[in-house]
Order: sequence, then structure tokens, then C-alpha cells
Amino acid sequence: MKAEIISVGSELLLGDVVNTNAAFIAKELTKYGVDCHYQTSVGDNKDKIKSVINCALNRASLLILTGGLGPTPDDITIETIAEFFNVDLVEDEQAKKMIMDYFRGMDRDMPTSNLKQSLRPAGASCIYNKAGTAPGMFWELKKQDFEFLNSDKVIIAFPGVPSEVYHLTDVFLSKYLSNLSPQVIVSRELKFAGISEALLAEKLGDLLEQSNPTIAPYVSKGEPYIRVCAKSNNNEQANELIDVVQDKIIQLVGEYNYGVGEEQLEHAIGKILAKNNQSIAVAESCTGGLISSRLTDVSGSSAYIKLNVVTYSNDSKEKMIKVSGDTLKKYGAVSEQVAKEMAIGVRELAGSDYGISITGIAGPTGATESKPVGLAYVGIASSNEIYTYKIQINSELDRREIKLRFSQRALYYLWKSLIG
Amino acid sequence: MKAEIISVGSELLLGDVVNTNAAFIAKELTKYGVDCHYQTSVGDNKDKIKSVINCALNRASLLILTGGLGPTPDDITIETIAEFFNVDLVEDEQAKKMIMDYFRGMDRDMPTSNLKQSLRPAGASCIYNKAGTAPGMFWELKKQDFEFLNSDKVIIAFPGVPSEVYHLTDVFLSKYLSNLSPQVIVSRELKFAGISEALLAEKLGDLLEQSNPTIAPYVSKGEPYIRVCAKSNNNEQANELIDVVQDKIIQLVGEYNYGVGEEQLEHAIGKILAKNNQSIAVAESCTGGLISSRLTDVSGSSAYIKLNVVTYSNDSKEKMIKVSGDTLKKYGAVSEQVAKEMAIGVRELAGSDYGISITGIAGPTGATESKPVGLAYVGIASSNEIYTYKIQINSELDRREIKLRFSQRALYYLWKSLIG
Repeated sequence: MKAEIISVGSELLLGDVVNTNAAFIAKELTKYGVDCHYQTSVGDNKDKIKSVINCALNRASLLILTGGLGPTPDDITIETIAEFFNVDLVEDEQAKKMIMDYFRGMDRDMPTSNLKQSLRPAGASCIYNKAGTAPGMFWELKKQDFEFLNSDKVIIAFPGVPSEVYHLTDVFLSKYLSNLSPQVIVSRELKFAGISEALLAEKLGDLLEQSNPTIAPYVSKGEPYIRVCAKSNNNEQANELIDVVQDKIIQLVGEYNYGVGEEQLEHAIGKILAKNNQSIAVAESCTGGLISSRLTDVSGSSAYIKLNVVTYSNDSKEKMIKVSGDTLKKYGAVSEQVAKEMAIGVRELAGSDYGISITGIAGPTGATESKPVGLAYVGIASSNEIYTYKIQINSELDRREIKLRFSQRALYYLWKSLIG
Repeated sequence: MKAEIISVGSELLLGDVVNTNAAFIAKELTKYGVDCHYQTSVGDNKDKIKSVINCALNRASLLILTGGLGPTPDDITIETIAEFFNVDLVEDEQAKKMIMDYFRGMDRDMPTSNLKQSLRPAGASCIYNKAGTAPGMFWELKKQDFEFLNSDKVIIAFPGVPSEVYHLTDVFLSKYLSNLSPQVIVSRELKFAGISEALLAEKLGDLLEQSNPTIAPYVSKGEPYIRVCAKSNNNEQANELIDVVQDKIIQLVGEYNYGVGEEQLEHAIGKILAKNNQSIAVAESCTGGLISSRLTDVSGSSAYIKLNVVTYSNDSKEKMIKVSGDTLKKYGAVSEQVAKEMAIGVRELAGSDYGISITGIAGPTGATESKPVGLAYVGIASSNEIYTYKIQINSELDRREIKLRFSQRALYYLWKSLIG
């Protein structure tokens, strides 16, 4: 079975919204071995939506649409689908009741426009939605009823709000997909830090040529990963195929591999700290709390995070974490020496096993001739050791991207320290 | 002139990467009044890339491709374009030199695979790239040279790494687009917090029906905004049209409007603090540094941010910011009383004008019967006042989404306090 993803919304074509839904649904399809060769985005325009649906129906038998199920007049996906197949819209009693209950639960008045969301094409069913007001739509279309179809088709429509897409996938789509396919595709992402994509690929050499599992290097958020992807009759067999290849990859580039799958550096770090029953404290300057926020994205991180401080000013560096005024004056806030004292200082303040610090210039202002945008120093202190690292990120990048890469590099050094 | 955006990369179809490039380029096209009716994503497969190029050439005259310009064997966009038009690949001397210099500058060895990136189709030119190793491609194709074309066409190809797309847009695409169109489309986003999209739309009523400027409400990251979009002969005229409509919108729903355009709540807050020469300190629990990181995303924020602490543990709440042990015991860490003492405590510790605090349950663990996932309390302290707010986010959402919505709501209350 082939699927296509259609994202509806003029906000996508205007660039006002990033399409995270397509990636999320694509991942679900991949998980259950359903091929998807095309994703299309189209605006809130009936004729263009119809033309995209028409094109996708010729290439695929499962269409998943997101967006255009809201309460406002430009939300037209459901009525366009009904028009395309020339059927009436009917009111779904259960959906209507749930929309009214939703607003009661949030203690808010229901705008009457929300009632439009209880409509579905006759013959389709609603997928009830606890995460928002718009129910999803599920419709099995038989070739015998719609003669212009080249085979039986299924059309699923979800709202465009990502959290509602996650919820409806959880309660409906995953189960539906898992019943579809005799074959599964299992894909595993091996995560790397401290090495470039090209060098990773070069070290892997001929390994990249093989099929089932296929091996492909990618870059996301400035760091590379390798996706190993196997097709088989069941998850167990596919995972066995992947295990064999993973071992080969680890032999070649294992020193840069911190985890697999959804795992980020913060998860890899958290696992080690939790296992060793050790704690950490963070002192940030240029990253402004991002390292701390990433570490606390891990559920259960309260077990090993003692205290994080954002000492943005020189004054707070001195007062809170005992960086010496002389050091600040002599070397400047962005210096190896200050990073060192920050790491030691926050570790002592928190009484933690480790202290990590970062001080640098995220830009676009604040650079000097000897200290360009993208420069940062990281300090990592333990009871008996203190290490510092210099980072230089491409200064052409924007402030948020530089902050992100600073945090990634700092967490990489922390991970390397923890694994010894 | 009509454009289409084609995103190349199997990682997009597999859902491993979110397509931020399409949104970014769409925004550029919009800015310069170039219509784009379709965006397509396709995998690293020559035949499918060719079929998408063929389809787009029939509908549009400017094609912008991203992705598949990397050094690895699955990066095939440039050679596929050359094959489609049946021309040879040639080496670009300047591109080759820049790739070699890039690695010298980063003090790293150049993998030989990177040299592939200096190839371009004969007749096309390279767009040199300081943010990475892959140059972009610019190709003007005349109908007289390629008879199967329905008009003259332009094909632009960028690498898939977002920071490189930003850079190449900056040095090339923006200028190219600005020379294209006699008409401009100006779009302005009015940002709102503390109100739902549906209620916003209902309050705007008939205003949503009008054209030039068009008015449309959207949701992004859990909060609504309104896009006002005008077409005119020049920026000034378009902006005048928008000004008139903006005034009408502000009359109806101005109390929820904190800014325009790229402006986030953190920018609106920063502006007020900087203007009033006031400072702030942050004490976070459940958001783990996210509020701090968002406030420091604003360039120049060091002027008003005194100190931020992440007091994740009860111990650090007591020691660092003087939350009383009795209060913690009596009401629990997630309580109005603790939020209050945290805000007062961090304000005093930092010696700042304002203190803001948050304590809550981001989940998925940590909930009790009376304190569900998604519950948080915010405290805002100034010299003479202290306010607290209760937040309840939908507990079905995931940890990161809940953290984000907590931060958004807390910053909204802070903004409301600051404007009085």
C-alpha cells in the first residue's frame, strides 16, 4: 500500500508555519512499512486542494490530510472532500457533544463557529479528539461506489494543530496502520557528535552501498546521524538485521556515537548520571538557560539536576558562583579562565558531583577583534579534575542557531567526560 | 511569475527531518510577491525527482530545490538536474578552491568526497557558500535551447542544511527575487496571547471577509496570530493598506496583541524592560531554563536580565531563593504559595526590579490526584506587588509541548504585568 501526505493551509505556502505534521506522520508510515513517495502542501483553495487530492488518488491508495479543520471560514478541508466526492455533509452528534463538553471543561464560552467542526461527509466517520475541538475524519471509499477511482481508497483527515495530530495518531492512526501491512520497515537512527557528516560517510566507506538494511548519513540541528533501515516480515527479524549492521558501524565510528533513536545528548548524559547516582549543576552565560532546559527535557531529570544558574552579568558571575573579579578583568568574561571558575563555582554552590559552564558570544553584537561571534569556552569540573574546551561556531549563523550549537557542543564534551 | 518549492531528501519522506526550509523559502517568495501554490517533498530517487521537476515546470517558471547537494553518494540533486536537461557536469574552479579553504579555516582535514560538491551542470552557475561546503546552483533556461519547456525557466538549488539556506538566501535569493516582480505582497503578523483562535475570529467577525488586505487567523506553538496580507505596487502603499486594517483589529482585540512579525513575547517584554531601564530575574522549576533561554534569545537582553536560576529540587528552592521549608511541606512544591515565595526570593537574590517564578508538573510522571500533569503556578513580584496565576494545560500533550506552553503563558502574564 502506498500513502501520500497532503498538508492544507495557506500559512504553509506563505511560510508562516513550519510543517512538522508531515514529518510526524511520515515517521508513523515508515514505522508500519507503508511507503510514501510524495508529500504535498497546498493552500486553503478548493480547486487546488481538489487537484492535489486527484493527483494523489492516482498514485496512492491512502491519503492523509492535515489542516483546514478549524472553526474559521478559511478552514475548508472537510467540505472540499465532500464536494470532491459529491456527497452531503452531516452533523455528528457525538462530535457536537464533545466540542460543547470541551469548552465546559476549560471553563470557557464556546464560540458558535466551533459547531462547524461537528460536520463530516455522509459515509465517513469522525475520529474523536480529546486534545482539541476538531474531530478527525476517516473514510473508506469503495471503487464500486465511486467509479472514477482506480482502486479502493482510504482518506484520513486530521486538524493542523501538531498536538492534536499526535493525539489522534496515538488513539487512531497507529492502530490503523499496524493492521495494514504484512511487512514492516524498522528504522534506527544512530546519533553522533563531534564529527562531520562527510567524515562519518568516508569512514563508513563501502558499508554505505549495502541494501536491507540501507545505511544513510544525515545532518539535523548541526550534528550528523546515521539511519539504518530494514524491511522484514516482523519487527524482530528487522531488528536482528539492523543489529548486525549497527555492530559494524560501531566498530568504525563508535567513539562518536552517543545514542540511538529519539535519544539526544541530554538523554545519554541523564542515563549515565542516573546509573552512577551522580548529580550535576550548570552555569550558563551565552546559552542563557538552553543547556539547562535541554537537560530537564528528560523526564526524571530532577534526580540528578541539583541547580542551574544563568549568570548573564559579570556581577552575577562574581556574586553567585565566585568567579574572581580579577579574572574577569584580566581575561574578560569570555575566556578559558572564567569558564573554569564558573564550573568550579557552580559545582561548589550546588554541592554536586559535576559542574558544567559555558561563556561565549552568541551575537550578533558583543564581538571584539580577538573574540568573534561564535566563540565560547566550556568548563567541566568534577571533584578532582577540571577541563576546558574552546568552541568556534561559524559566525555567519544566527543567534538562536549559535546558541543551539553551543549547547550541543557543550553537552558533547560533558558526555565525553562522563564516559571517561 | 509563479514559483514552486521542491524539497529533496528521503529523510523528509521517512519523517527523520522536519522541513523548515520550505517555510523559510516560502516566506521569501511571499515577501517579494511571487506566488507559490504547491510545495512538494520527494526522496533521493532520480526518477521521482525528475517527475516532480517535470510537473513543477508545467505549473511554474521558477523552481527552487533544496537538499541533496551534500558530499555523500545519496546526494544526487545536481546530477539529476543535469541528466533531466541532458547536459554534462563541469567542475567549478572557484567552488573547489572555496571548499578546500573552508576545511583549512576550520582546521580540519577535507574528506575527498567533498570535492563532488564543486560540480555544476554546464550552463548553470554556482552560488558560493560561506556557511558550508556545498555551493548553490542558479540556472536560467531558455525555451529556445530546451524545446520541451512551455516558457523560459529558472532553477535554483540550495543545500538542505537550514543555516546554509539562510546564508544563500541572504547573499543571493533575496536580491534575485526583489528584481523580479513589479508587485509586492507585504504580510504582517499580529501576535496574540491569552485568547483562542476561534474567539479571536469571532470577535473580528465580518472583517475576515475583506480582500486586499486579506485577514486570516492562525495558530502556531499553541498561540494564535492574525496575518494581514496586502498586494500593491510598492512596500509603502502595501503597508498603508495594512495599517488601516491593523487599526481596526486593534480596536476589537488589542488587549491581547503583544507584537507584530517575528516578535515573540520575549521581545515585547525586552522592549518594555529596556525602555524603562528595569531588570528581571527568573526562578524556574518545571520549565527547567526554557523561560530564561527564551528571554536571552533577544539580542541585548544582558541589559535587563540580572540572574536566572533553575531551582529544580526543594533543597535548591530553600537554599538559593529562600522558599520556606514549612511552605514546601504544607502546600507542596507545586503550589501558589511556593510560586509566590520563589518570585519574591529570586527578586531579592538578584536585586532586580521584577522577579518571575514558575513551578508545575510537565509530566509524564510526577502527577498526584489533586495535582495533574499540566498544572503550574506562576508568580510575579515587583517592589510593591506580588501576583500569582494558575495554569492548566491539556495533560494529553507531551513534556516538551507542555514546557513550551507553560513558558508562553508565564511570559504572557509577565507582559500583562509590565504594560499594567
